[in-house]
Amino acid sequence: MQQGRVSEMCGIVGIALEDVSARAAIPIFYALYSLQHRGQESAGIATVSGTAGAGSVGGSGEIHLERGMGLVSEVFRENLSKLKGNIGIGHVRYSTTGASTLKNAEPLVVDYRDGRIAIAHNGNIVNASQLRNELKKEGRIFHSETDTEVLAHIFVKGLMKHNDPISALEEVMRRVIGSYSLTMLVNDTLIAVRDPVGFRPLCMGFIEGEKDANGVIFASESTAIDTLGGITLRDVRPGEVIIVREGCEYESFQFCKATNKAHCVFEYIYFARPDSVLDGRLVYDVRLKIGERLAEEHPVDADIVSPIPDSGVTFAIGYAKRSSIDYIEAFIKNRYVGRTFIMPEREARETAVRLKLNVVRENVASKRVILVDDSIVRGTTSKRIVERVRRAGAKEVHLRIGSPPIKAPCYFGIDTPTREELIASSHSINEICSILNADSIGYLSIEGLIDAIGMPAENLCLGCLTGKYPVEVPGEECIAKQLKLWQF
Amino acid sequence: MQQGRVSEMCGIVGIALEDVSARAAIPIFYALYSLQHRGQESAGIATVSGTAGAGSVGGSGEIHLERGMGLVSEVFRENLSKLKGNIGIGHVRYSTTGASTLKNAEPLVVDYRDGRIAIAHNGNIVNASQLRNELKKEGRIFHSETDTEVLAHIFVKGLMKHNDPISALEEVMRRVIGSYSLTMLVNDTLIAVRDPVGFRPLCMGFIEGEKDANGVIFASESTAIDTLGGITLRDVRPGEVIIVREGCEYESFQFCKATNKAHCVFEYIYFARPDSVLDGRLVYDVRLKIGERLAEEHPVDADIVSPIPDSGVTFAIGYAKRSSIDYIEAFIKNRYVGRTFIMPEREARETAVRLKLNVVRENVASKRVILVDDSIVRGTTSKRIVERVRRAGAKEVHLRIGSPPIKAPCYFGIDTPTREELIASSHSINEICSILNADSIGYLSIEGLIDAIGMPAENLCLGCLTGKYPVEVPGEECIAKQLKLWQF
Amino acid sequence: MQQGRVSEMCGIVGIALEDVSARAAIPIFYALYSLQHRGQESAGIATVSGTAGAGSVGGSGEIHLERGMGLVSEVFRENLSKLKGNIGIGHVRYSTTGASTLKNAEPLVVDYRDGRIAIAHNGNIVNASQLRNELKKEGRIFHSETDTEVLAHIFVKGLMKHNDPISALEEVMRRVIGSYSLTMLVNDTLIAVRDPVGFRPLCMGFIEGEKDANGVIFASESTAIDTLGGITLRDVRPGEVIIVREGCEYESFQFCKATNKAHCVFEYIYFARPDSVLDGRLVYDVRLKIGERLAEEHPVDADIVSPIPDSGVTFAIGYAKRSSIDYIEAFIKNRYVGRTFIMPEREARETAVRLKLNVVRENVASKRVILVDDSIVRGTTSKRIVERVRRAGAKEVHLRIGSPPIKAPCYFGIDTPTREELIASSHSINEICSILNADSIGYLSIEGLIDAIGMPAENLCLGCLTGKYPVEVPGEECIAKQLKLWQF
Amino acid sequence: MQQGRVSEMCGIVGIALEDVSARAAIPIFYALYSLQHRGQESAGIATVSGTAGAGSVGGSGEIHLERGMGLVSEVFRENLSKLKGNIGIGHVRYSTTGASTLKNAEPLVVDYRDGRIAIAHNGNIVNASQLRNELKKEGRIFHSETDTEVLAHIFVKGLMKHNDPISALEEVMRRVIGSYSLTMLVNDTLIAVRDPVGFRPLCMGFIEGEKDANGVIFASESTAIDTLGGITLRDVRPGEVIIVREGCEYESFQFCKATNKAHCVFEYIYFARPDSVLDGRLVYDVRLKIGERLAEEHPVDADIVSPIPDSGVTFAIGYAKRSSIDYIEAFIKNRYVGRTFIMPEREARETAVRLKLNVVRENVASKRVILVDDSIVRGTTSKRIVERVRRAGAKEVHLRIGSPPIKAPCYFGIDTPTREELIASSHSINEICSILNADSIGYLSIEGLIDAIGMPAENLCLGCLTGKYPVEVPGEECIAKQLKLWQF
Repeated sequence: MQQGRVSEMCGIVGIALEDVSARAAIPIFYALYSLQHRGQESAGIATVSGTAGAGSVGGSGEIHLERGMGLVSEVFRENLSKLKGNIGIGHVRYSTTGASTLKNAEPLVVDYRDGRIAIAHNGNIVNASQLRNELKKEGRIFHSETDTEVLAHIFVKGLMKHNDPISALEEVMRRVIGSYSLTMLVNDTLIAVRDPVGFRPLCMGFIEGEKDANGVIFASESTAIDTLGGITLRDVRPGEVIIVREGCEYESFQFCKATNKAHCVFEYIYFARPDSVLDGRLVYDVRLKIGERLAEEHPVDADIVSPIPDSGVTFAIGYAKRSSIDYIEAFIKNRYVGRTFIMPEREARETAVRLKLNVVRENVASKRVILVDDSIVRGTTSKRIVERVRRAGAKEVHLRIGSPPIKAPCYFGIDTPTREELIASSHSINEICSILNADSIGYLSIEGLIDAIGMPAENLCLGCLTGKYPVEVPGEECIAKQLKLWQF
Repeated sequence: MQQGRVSEMCGIVGIALEDVSARAAIPIFYALYSLQHRGQESAGIATVSGTAGAGSVGGSGEIHLERGMGLVSEVFRENLSKLKGNIGIGHVRYSTTGASTLKNAEPLVVDYRDGRIAIAHNGNIVNASQLRNELKKEGRIFHSETDTEVLAHIFVKGLMKHNDPISALEEVMRRVIGSYSLTMLVNDTLIAVRDPVGFRPLCMGFIEGEKDANGVIFASESTAIDTLGGITLRDVRPGEVIIVREGCEYESFQFCKATNKAHCVFEYIYFARPDSVLDGRLVYDVRLKIGERLAEEHPVDADIVSPIPDSGVTFAIGYAKRSSIDYIEAFIKNRYVGRTFIMPEREARETAVRLKLNVVRENVASKRVILVDDSIVRGTTSKRIVERVRRAGAKEVHLRIGSPPIKAPCYFGIDTPTREELIASSHSINEICSILNADSIGYLSIEGLIDAIGMPAENLCLGCLTGKYPVEVPGEECIAKQLKLWQF
Repeated sequence: MQQGRVSEMCGIVGIALEDVSARAAIPIFYALYSLQHRGQESAGIATVSGTAGAGSVGGSGEIHLERGMGLVSEVFRENLSKLKGNIGIGHVRYSTTGASTLKNAEPLVVDYRDGRIAIAHNGNIVNASQLRNELKKEGRIFHSETDTEVLAHIFVKGLMKHNDPISALEEVMRRVIGSYSLTMLVNDTLIAVRDPVGFRPLCMGFIEGEKDANGVIFASESTAIDTLGGITLRDVRPGEVIIVREGCEYESFQFCKATNKAHCVFEYIYFARPDSVLDGRLVYDVRLKIGERLAEEHPVDADIVSPIPDSGVTFAIGYAKRSSIDYIEAFIKNRYVGRTFIMPEREARETAVRLKLNVVRENVASKRVILVDDSIVRGTTSKRIVERVRRAGAKEVHLRIGSPPIKAPCYFGIDTPTREELIASSHSINEICSILNADSIGYLSIEGLIDAIGMPAENLCLGCLTGKYPVEVPGEECIAKQLKLWQF
Repeated sequence: MQQGRVSEMCGIVGIALEDVSARAAIPIFYALYSLQHRGQESAGIATVSGTAGAGSVGGSGEIHLERGMGLVSEVFRENLSKLKGNIGIGHVRYSTTGASTLKNAEPLVVDYRDGRIAIAHNGNIVNASQLRNELKKEGRIFHSETDTEVLAHIFVKGLMKHNDPISALEEVMRRVIGSYSLTMLVNDTLIAVRDPVGFRPLCMGFIEGEKDANGVIFASESTAIDTLGGITLRDVRPGEVIIVREGCEYESFQFCKATNKAHCVFEYIYFARPDSVLDGRLVYDVRLKIGERLAEEHPVDADIVSPIPDSGVTFAIGYAKRSSIDYIEAFIKNRYVGRTFIMPEREARETAVRLKLNVVRENVASKRVILVDDSIVRGTTSKRIVERVRRAGAKEVHLRIGSPPIKAPCYFGIDTPTREELIASSHSINEICSILNADSIGYLSIEGLIDAIGMPAENLCLGCLTGKYPVEVPGEECIAKQLKLWQF
């Protein structure tokens, strides 16, 4: 999947260090750095000093907030030193709702009757606009366009009703439909939340902070915990709320007894880093298996197997391994073509593509080439890539895709284009092959994907592949049993 | 070879477009972008409008210059539009001499009696300090610490003596010892020069600029020409001077009849992009062959072959192919750890390494792992990497290195540490294996390297591997026959 | 009054142009530029496209917002072109409440049930914290620390109750105690509001925008209208709400029948630009009269009269005129010592003062010098200035101050220090003279001030001079009759 | 004289502190700050550590250089700490030759045979282009377009011939025609130089640096010494070279026995700060006397005298004093319209003028107004200002100008327009009055100017007023006796 075709989502972190004098901002900074692939638009950290009676959800500690547009390394420099306190949350954002402005950067920090709340959110609320209108009818006002502000209102309503964050979060789970992995500060208390079906990942572990301060960490992916030299304990469970009490003690509340989950398959295919373990499965391993399975499902006689960098690499390694065809790179990527690249001349599109990805002519000339990518969204980039390999002299070009055809939009946090723009929603596989001018095309089967992930289909969200969604989305088909589970 | 161990050098470009109204700055910008790996410290472009009588080395066109610290994409934004003219040169710099300041950024542009000269230089002058002193004794003054300023003085002296840039460059070749690939503007005339033994690469081709203007291009690597959709014609020959006459016509002068060359082997091993063809050899192909040769020279029974990213990738693919051991990645690199990364806390070195490169624990646990890298300089990073793979549970760790041991410094443009800091200059291979705590270590043999490159040893500079240099360096051993050739 | 002793406040603007295709952002930008002296911390503009049925308080036009930290010329560059629409408001801020962060920059733009609201506020709400707590008890949440957010909540509550912005503003006047001059957008309708006693200025006029579009303008000071080449019509009256209907038609609502006002005297003494006309009085004229009056009240035999630049200039001209003593400058101000001046070395305080203000030794040596300033807050700067004039050789130094002693804090928008820090709250005039080491000191009398302004005392806020405030402030004495008027 | 009409020149500083461990960069920074009015385009400081044998013109101390585009406060921030050493020079630049680029920023630092030289220059070399060509014929190359680079070459030639900086400077005085006040570092020795007729000011004094280190200071104006709390000793004499030996000891060499000088009268009229004493005369006093003299030469019956801010202020005070007409300001200047002001819309010229200078309508309506300015260059701004005062209702507008008509260009450092653009070069005073639409105009007489300055005409450069220059300028009339003196 080429950058620019499907946008990344958000990454979240939450850390509570035992030692009141240790600073949570430092490990949060590193953790966000390792989650940078989940969002490059803005970054933010909110911290607070935990008092003795941490967990009392009282406390008067001021919440410090620093956020800005850009990469983690751009947003945080000297300002990191302003973020005092041993407890905090962090966020990297690629907006799925809301425009790209500082106003929408997270964490969101608000005052309410009994103190302050900070929220970092990964996901997308399906009924956000309905909830927003309800809240406005009560006379509430909104400062941003984010789902997170809706969550804040619902949560504060619950807090004021129940005087207890756990009950308030139970209410959030009842009212809010969609995907949400959250890290929150309620005054000086850290809380982690995962929606009842577990669309987006969230894992938990232990780290050592400055001065050997022991600490609890929550992060979107386990790689963040690895980066800090910590130990990953387990995933936060769908429907679970974890509140960190004094020190490293924590308490778990399980609100949704759902037996079925809805883990996003695209976390495995594209979004997550290969070195992360999500819901018990190493992403690298899933991708390698997908590559092998692709070779079994769609074998072809060829001279080389090549990835489309970077997202196709692990699939191609798996394909080459199973097929015993040589793994040789057809493309070299320019590591310096970054996010900030602005073409000085509009017309120079073609040059831009060559700048980013150059064909190694000698590696493909007169060869039968298998190109492996993770997915096809609109098909425009794939078409251009096939053409370039042909022009470099390839005899045959075979496409192998590490996911089934994407036929329907995602409502749970992935910024897919409209149904009309998805090439697979309106074209057969043969048509796609012909449009992309490939000699053959092979998509992974849905069964193959399920096998590679190694979980029952009932625990996966396959919405964008099947058009059937695990929770109710207006105008879309819903898998009934899931819906029931939702309404616990 | 890990970034930070051995520094990159410079990249140069020269372009002359036939149509006087076309702008050379645009394709130079793209070409520099594709050569960004050769220098990230500063970038610059100088352009001029060629008049009808181009090649007359008269002309009164003003030379426009824009340069700055940072990446090509950072230095050039709106200022690109100030660079008028159909002829120009460009430069990306990683300083090998001179401190890191704007003053040292290239191209260097100076006035002399008959007009203006601009020079972009890749290489290192061995007798720079001696020449500098001679020039100072004549009363000349210096504004910077660069070799390029020395070249400018020598060239201008020749120009004033001979009234002809070609004869002046012949004189430069007589006086200047060291490595230099140059692109130059002498008023509105583009000239390319390569030192008599061809240490640094320089190739030539044709492109189409704006408005379909045909043009001649010189660039450090052929990938720059590919990026522009152009055609690589050939390498500039060692000792050759090429002057671009009117339109795309050019004239070549061959000053050194040397049968022996001294192409830098590290261009093939590490510096050049794999998709470049240097002096007739595709870099990717050389690296793949090195990997295969390594498997032949140093076989070992193991479970996986893994590159140390990014420089070890192609070697590891070759090793895996020949040995039939599975190619599996042991490390995932964080693509966002960039040049500008500043650790907020000094002590956090260990975290910094993990930020950049994370071990995929499951891929190495209980496995016998072969790690492939391009070279070892000081050994500190290699040691740390071996240790991390061991801590992740590897049963055995075998290092395979795509170059022979680096035993001596480079005087020709590669920023190696002093002899004392080079681990292989004072330790046997067994000692190195023990210091790095590897189960085995296998360096490529010099013969293996020569075979993989596919050129006679006489045409390669092996100075850093053998301590014998192709041209006279004070205090170092020189290969006699080369010296003779030099003094044509 | 020296910069840094008493901070400036805010400046506001509102403009509605008749022609829907004209852009309000351009004249708002200029107007803010001319009001820059009222706030240098942040600046912002919000604009909207007025539809045919302007004034209907419906409309669906999006409100565009650009704001940032720094001067008007720093905040607005290319982003000015994003501010589409013929109607808009602007704000320059020096925070009197809330910390100095972008979050607190204005205008504030929020969504509510029926659309969007933007507010720009100059003033200070006395019962803000009480209102904030009431609103929080209703479950409302706050994103910033500004009074303006409190105003927004109260206004939206009123809007939802009455479905009419005029009635909502009547309710705001009932609930909110303090100073507030406001410009607002309610969807695509421009509204201007001034609190019932008119603490802060707000005037109204007509301008010509781009394409000769006629327009209505509201601005803190008339100089903003002059700058745009417009015509000042009149002041917005205390307790008045003006809504701009279609084109340049407007409707006025007078909610408070108060016969007494509370215009801030420090607008005339220090804050406003001398070329502004506030509530019918030219500031320059008031200051000149104060200078003359000072000469009458506190004559002294001396050689020269000198202002302390810049705030003492007009007073000194008046003093010199009445006393017939030569007006000669004792100090030259460095025009380049700006807002951003950061001393490289902490200890160098003394140098910093000299950098900003240099004594012209020859002008004061062996002379009897009268120094004229607008006011004394803490006295530290005045003391230093007297000492420097003495060291330059002055025989005598007489201070003349263009305001009565400041004895009490301001609760209505001026950022005075605490009572304890005000030198005149705890010292007699004789003591002050002795502390400052002056030969004599002469403060303007309160009667003199009232005469110079030329309004009845009942229409002025003299709170900081008398400690008696025109509206109820917890813990302070209130002038009873005013309070009654307030509760209309 | 309105900003933008005639450009400012350069300011220079040189400081040597006795204590080797004290840092010269700090007081140089402050001194440049106080000379900011002499140049806002770029700023630079060069420092060196003086060794025991200071003055030996040997020493091997490295010269540290920091320079950049912009104001002193923008260029120097943390980089000030890099400027180690107790001896240094500084420069603020408004380019009179050379384009506005960093390349041309000073001090210029170059290497030569025996070490390093740094030069800061205020002035303009009349025969620069001739010298430059001569130097180029010797094969020398130039990196910039500045006169300073020419000076460096001539000086180094002298140094290599004589092996002594004093003799080298004698040679500079023989070869170089034009204005030059210089501060220089020759290795670790500080030298100050003033051209033989003393066009540009340069004064000398003593200061206390950090740690009470005594030091010698040279600066363009005495205000820089005041700012540092130092004592001004005297002016550097025309034709004098002062070399600072060990500690605060210095030696003076007088090379030109000229009895006649050529001090620039515009330093007194416009450029210098009023609080500076130049060649024995306080600028404020000269301007006050000019104002008085103007009242005597051109009396008129009027109601108010008003300066055109800021340059007309002191003249107007003098005029008002002598004429007994009230001094009242007709204009208020916006202190925030800075150097960086960029109009968002090109056409809005008229608004830009109003933004900068607003008429106080009430102060001029129905009045007979005398407007006092320092000079008229092109006349365009004056015309606009007269018109604005008329439109504000003035009955009569009388212009009084603090200088005689400017009829000829300056070749000695002031950036005047060409002769054609100078309104007084081609129009009689009556014509100018009519063009500017004034009721009367009165220029100061040349005699009046000479009297106010209080020096014999023979010691002043009146070139721009008389068209007769004190040194030979190609194509211009020269005052013979001066020329002789020059060729000592």
